[in-house]
Amino acid sequence: MSVIRQDPTTKEWVILASERSKRPHDATGQSVRSSAHHHEVSCPFCPGNEQMTPGEIWRVPDDQRAPWLVRVVPNKFAALTPRDNLTRRDEQALFREMDGVGFHEVIIETPQHDRFLALMSVEEVERILLAYQLRYLDLEQDPRIRYIILFKNHGERAGTSLDHPHSQIVATPIAPVLLRRKYQVAMAHYDDTGRCLYRDIVEAELRVKTRLIVETDRYVVFHPFASRAPFETWIVPKSRQPSFGELTAEDRRDLALVLLQVLRALDRLLGSPAFNYVVHSAPAEDADRPYYLWHIQILPRVATIAGFELGSGIFVTTMLPEESAASMREALAEFK
Amino acid sequence: MSVIRQDPTTKEWVILASERSKRPHDATGQSVRSSAHHHEVSCPFCPGNEQMTPGEIWRVPDDQRAPWLVRVVPNKFAALTPRDNLTRRDEQALFREMDGVGFHEVIIETPQHDRFLALMSVEEVERILLAYQLRYLDLEQDPRIRYIILFKNHGERAGTSLDHPHSQIVATPIAPVLLRRKYQVAMAHYDDTGRCLYRDIVEAELRVKTRLIVETDRYVVFHPFASRAPFETWIVPKSRQPSFGELTAEDRRDLALVLLQVLRALDRLLGSPAFNYVVHSAPAEDADRPYYLWHIQILPRVATIAGFELGSGIFVTTMLPEESAASMREALAEFK
Repeated sequence: MSVIRQDPTTKEWVILASERSKRPHDATGQSVRSSAHHHEVSCPFCPGNEQMTPGEIWRVPDDQRAPWLVRVVPNKFAALTPRDNLTRRDEQALFREMDGVGFHEVIIETPQHDRFLALMSVEEVERILLAYQLRYLDLEQDPRIRYIILFKNHGERAGTSLDHPHSQIVATPIAPVLLRRKYQVAMAHYDDTGRCLYRDIVEAELRVKTRLIVETDRYVVFHPFASRAPFETWIVPKSRQPSFGELTAEDRRDLALVLLQVLRALDRLLGSPAFNYVVHSAPAEDADRPYYLWHIQILPRVATIAGFELGSGIFVTTMLPEESAASMREALAEFK
Repeated sequence: MSVIRQDPTTKEWVILASERSKRPHDATGQSVRSSAHHHEVSCPFCPGNEQMTPGEIWRVPDDQRAPWLVRVVPNKFAALTPRDNLTRRDEQALFREMDGVGFHEVIIETPQHDRFLALMSVEEVERILLAYQLRYLDLEQDPRIRYIILFKNHGERAGTSLDHPHSQIVATPIAPVLLRRKYQVAMAHYDDTGRCLYRDIVEAELRVKTRLIVETDRYVVFHPFASRAPFETWIVPKSRQPSFGELTAEDRRDLALVLLQVLRALDRLLGSPAFNYVVHSAPAEDADRPYYLWHIQILPRVATIAGFELGSGIFVTTMLPEESAASMREALAEFK
């Protein structure tokens, strides 16, 4: 079982999970597969291999080609696992530690081994977003949970260990320092101006237009002013939704459309890049905070995070968001 | 010229440097070299190619084999460059930006193309540390500079673009959020207890012993309680030195010895891993802060930073520091 420890010099939390070293990776973090296309027979996420994953949590059944369309299972090499107790230890007030209690699940996005998200139909992506939301709503019922993060690692440079398209959801018993910082900044803005920082950013991006990519009835998509990577993309809702759990069916449909557009444009412009995306969302207990909005951050992994970034927290980006946004707008215009 | 922008949602700074996209890398961040051993004829850091780097800043001359032993030059693809003015712009109080004023230098550690740090003698490493310190002291004289970071990227997974052994120093006109956070935590500890947090950690590690690797007259080396990567290693001075600029000749000699021991042990145990190290140090204006100590953080890059880490700021480490520290102690015992 893993433990969660606090860095006494930054108060940031770290999960120490020895079990995860047994993942299908070698010790250097290189995938043991030499090729990107490995045989589906050995893929734990392919239909027919359901017994290779721990007990299924949820599925969208199908009677046609495959037995299911979307499937949610516990992560076999979970960073956190559900247990009864959440014991905190505090040695000399310097070494704070607790049991690695929480949830770590995998959303298997499709029965097809090589059907990458950008190739899917809007309906397929909608189903995945529904799976995200239902698991999100279920996990946030647990009183021990303080934070839930949904994310996707695509490609080896983005940290994926299995090619079969999947996303992950992790529910933690601690609030990350990063979330607290985002709250603190947004709260100060709210106190200063009476307005939601994220709405103000969205309105400013709509006005400035140079970093804007897509605007729909429900979402604004742009490359952020201080992008941490070339082509970093944000999707922010126009409605007042601090939590991702509040999506309506219409919100999901529009989000599926917008997400597909972005991923297809990135795929074309950067040549199938590795990327991560993350759903930032206020936890249940903060779902009514008027100064926060859930949002999706997409980070193409075209650069290596090196000593300067790790040591200072300052990222160096080799392209202005105004330039990358212009390329994205052109690529999207061609799709139409 | 680059620009420095503030993320309005976290107040973190990002450097946007289009010039750096011209580095010897292709667009995906993969090195264009197919092999780790490229011909020294084309290496800008090898003797004979001095004209390939911008104007030399400092050198340790040598009359024997090579014309120099250590050489410091401006980074040809600098993230920040010295200019006269530091103009700040603040559009709608949301989009803070300033010119990319600062310094970005390369410390070429040796004339020998493949003489990796762990293979060097103590004297060679001492010379490199002297170069670090002299450049540090010189750059902190500039009144526009708020922070200086010394770091090394070793290996492609750690973000290096050239094999020839080198370190880098970056001087920024802004204080990183991470430094402010470290101050804030250490200051609260100082106010609560009257003691320096870093000294308290060092004393606790000496008492607990399970994470301890080396203790000398001047330094304590350990794997931190909340390690962000397997074999993350910290070197912390026993003396009260908030700033790296304060090292004495004896401090440098002992540090060279300790750094060599750690790098050799990591090299043996992890099979020549990619790694970053960073010198964390209080800037000149904070050099008398009694609650801070400079320290070196060594991060082997054996895992990929993925969506969970980037989205939550919570790192997942697959090995306990107590286990890795035991391996390090064994490896060091064998050297003796």
